[in-house]
Amino acid sequence: MEVTRTLARYIVQSKPGDIPVPVRHEAARALLNWSGCAIGASRHETIENMLAAVLPFAGPAQAGILGRSERVDILHAALVNGVSSHVFDFDDTHARAIHPSAPVYPALLALAEWKGISGADLVHAFVVGVEAECRVGLSVFPEHYNVGWHITGTAGVFGAAAAAGKLLGLNEQQMAWALGIAATQSSGLREMFGSMCKSLHPGRAAQNGLMAALLASRNFTSSEQAIEAKRGFGHVMSTRFDPSVITAEWGQRYELSSNMYKPFACGLVVQGTIDGCIQLRNEYKLAPEMIERVDLRVSPIVLELTAKENPQTGLEGKFSVFHAAAVALHFGMAGEAQFSDACVLDPSVVALRRKVKIEADTSIGRVQSHVFIRLKDGRTLERRVEHALGTLERPMSDADLETKFRALVDGILTRQQCNDVIRLCWGVEEIPDAGAIARAAAAYPI
Amino acid sequence: MEVTRTLARYIVQSKPGDIPVPVRHEAARALLNWSGCAIGASRHETIENMLAAVLPFAGPAQAGILGRSERVDILHAALVNGVSSHVFDFDDTHARAIHPSAPVYPALLALAEWKGISGADLVHAFVVGVEAECRVGLSVFPEHYNVGWHITGTAGVFGAAAAAGKLLGLNEQQMAWALGIAATQSSGLREMFGSMCKSLHPGRAAQNGLMAALLASRNFTSSEQAIEAKRGFGHVMSTRFDPSVITAEWGQRYELSSNMYKPFACGLVVQGTIDGCIQLRNEYKLAPEMIERVDLRVSPIVLELTAKENPQTGLEGKFSVFHAAAVALHFGMAGEAQFSDACVLDPSVVALRRKVKIEADTSIGRVQSHVFIRLKDGRTLERRVEHALGTLERPMSDADLETKFRALVDGILTRQQCNDVIRLCWGVEEIPDAGAIARAAAAYPI
Repeated sequence: MEVTRTLARYIVQSKPGDIPVPVRHEAARALLNWSGCAIGASRHETIENMLAAVLPFAGPAQAGILGRSERVDILHAALVNGVSSHVFDFDDTHARAIHPSAPVYPALLALAEWKGISGADLVHAFVVGVEAECRVGLSVFPEHYNVGWHITGTAGVFGAAAAAGKLLGLNEQQMAWALGIAATQSSGLREMFGSMCKSLHPGRAAQNGLMAALLASRNFTSSEQAIEAKRGFGHVMSTRFDPSVITAEWGQRYELSSNMYKPFACGLVVQGTIDGCIQLRNEYKLAPEMIERVDLRVSPIVLELTAKENPQTGLEGKFSVFHAAAVALHFGMAGEAQFSDACVLDPSVVALRRKVKIEADTSIGRVQSHVFIRLKDGRTLERRVEHALGTLERPMSDADLETKFRALVDGILTRQQCNDVIRLCWGVEEIPDAGAIARAAAAYPI
Repeated sequence: MEVTRTLARYIVQSKPGDIPVPVRHEAARALLNWSGCAIGASRHETIENMLAAVLPFAGPAQAGILGRSERVDILHAALVNGVSSHVFDFDDTHARAIHPSAPVYPALLALAEWKGISGADLVHAFVVGVEAECRVGLSVFPEHYNVGWHITGTAGVFGAAAAAGKLLGLNEQQMAWALGIAATQSSGLREMFGSMCKSLHPGRAAQNGLMAALLASRNFTSSEQAIEAKRGFGHVMSTRFDPSVITAEWGQRYELSSNMYKPFACGLVVQGTIDGCIQLRNEYKLAPEMIERVDLRVSPIVLELTAKENPQTGLEGKFSVFHAAAVALHFGMAGEAQFSDACVLDPSVVALRRKVKIEADTSIGRVQSHVFIRLKDGRTLERRVEHALGTLERPMSDADLETKFRALVDGILTRQQCNDVIRLCWGVEEIPDAGAIARAAAAYPI
């Protein structure tokens, strides 16, 4: 079965009108969420260090770095925007393991700025790219991930190549080469989790995929069976490989429909607890001084991953369900600001955090939570969260995504810019030049 | 065992005076051979297509592309010179599988041009880089290669990172990060053999390794156990991993001492036959019209890989032991010119080729050959080649390497330039600015 060739043909033959309206709207939601993450992390140490290293080698000012003033060549723009969008680990997540936007949108937005691509074409290329990366990823998932590959990097490069190749108008032969050039650059180890290199992976995937498409457009050749061959991606990089999922039901199901957005700036297993705490806070108008004690019944995995009782830094706060519950009850929010060093050390947060107790319960799912709050006036409040906000069963609304975006870009974009980017994302299919989004998201330190 | 950290420390602590003189001379030999290969392939379609794709995105004119007039940023120079040096598959080969120079010298020469590095420092960094890449490669060889990884790419990136990091003066912590950033970019599939992507691998390894060192120099962090960790390079990318070979006898044995140079521009298994034919031709002053019949007794692998009786292109000629024997007898040479389309179609070559017969003999090694020539005057000549020219047992002399270099750069560099580059390579340890080599090897089409 010639999976690489078939996938190339499907990508090349896809037309914008083929894509159902709800899928296209999901692309707009992903764009808003992705750009917010990238802008929000644009002054993070990870980005500052990377820019100090690479700016002396950057090419012409073809594309912007979101949230910053620098303009660089499109390959570096794809790299840096890919890294920044994953720094907070707050970007979108396909229901099965890959972060779809971070490898694809950076490549597309850079190309859009350089070549003047319409928003409709951008959306179409994004949908096609997400199909490619998710399907290639699913053909080896979960064995490929379990052995130690960071699938957002290893599969993401296919998405960037497919999407960029679509915008560049590759023919079927060239698209097969682009997928092959992507395959032979596929990389990224899970061992890097916890270091800046975790975010390097989607950035390199975006850059390498874009490069693959550019090389293929000039007839730089690769194997044409790069995915399925005996010494190709599937067999070399996984103990299990099922090529059939790459092409099955193409055009009938869309992987983008399984895309999820995190409302809170920390790990998945804490989202249910935060959600339940915010619900109770808002319904009962709770203030910290009203609370006597908080009991959480959670999945054992929550204790395993996030039982840090006395975090001292923002990063440690992300691994403390105690801190997460405290900020949710205190502020009704759990964005990056609530996981800053300052917030973790805030005496009123620390006081509330000490009132939180946890208990493992194997009947509770990893993203679920059962929250009990005893108030000083004697009342006990309770909320069981079956489906945390942000799961497929209870997705974030468009308004939720806007709120998340505003919190992420606060202090980086002006209010006017913030509104402009939101408007451009929701109306992306109508804008003649999608590069306008990147230009609206450029910023000098305020 | 903290192999990554130990390797980093060894690299950082290495001093130029530690390296024995014969090893340093081997670095000069490798430099001459590598630059000849890069210059020779600098106008090949692979390079033309790549430059058409990437030049619009290149940064400041910091470093040259060997054999050409373009000057680009050091990351792109490392990429392109890494690709060109492998296009002819004529670059050096470590006794066990990796091509050492192609991933390392491009990164170093680009840095030398940019920062003004002395030749002695360049040689030292090269030796250290070759140690790193060969030892990392040997820790997973041959299983890693057998499953489908192109080890020149996957291990080469460590060599480029180590060597570039040495020139950049990284401390031990930064060097460990550089090795980690290299590990998480390690890539390259053997499925690409036969396409332009085979040469992409050392180019990307050079570029990615250089990038790893640059990022680390700005404190971009990675795992510090990237090679040995459960989800690190060794365990994820190979079924067998022996970390002890990475650090054993550091400073006592040098992998560069096991470096080999190919005298003839085709696969290893044909080198013995060519060698034997050239020896007989020169000793007996043979001309094509004197020859009635040629019989070759060779390893069965020669029939398997190179039994193309009637090649029609230069590339097919490389897979024809018949053509190889014919050009060796006809011209006494088997360089790139003898594997051109024109030479493969030359009627006098075709006539001689038809007189060549082969027979498999399991007692003959893969790089050996037993050549019998029957002359029209009734004499029969015979030569058994136990150790083909270019093997460790019978290395090419410095003069042989010069002859090879001259043939490769013919038509690209002027005679004066050719002499200059040869002089600079032999005297590399005395030149204050090693970038002079790259500048001497720049060329406009003649």
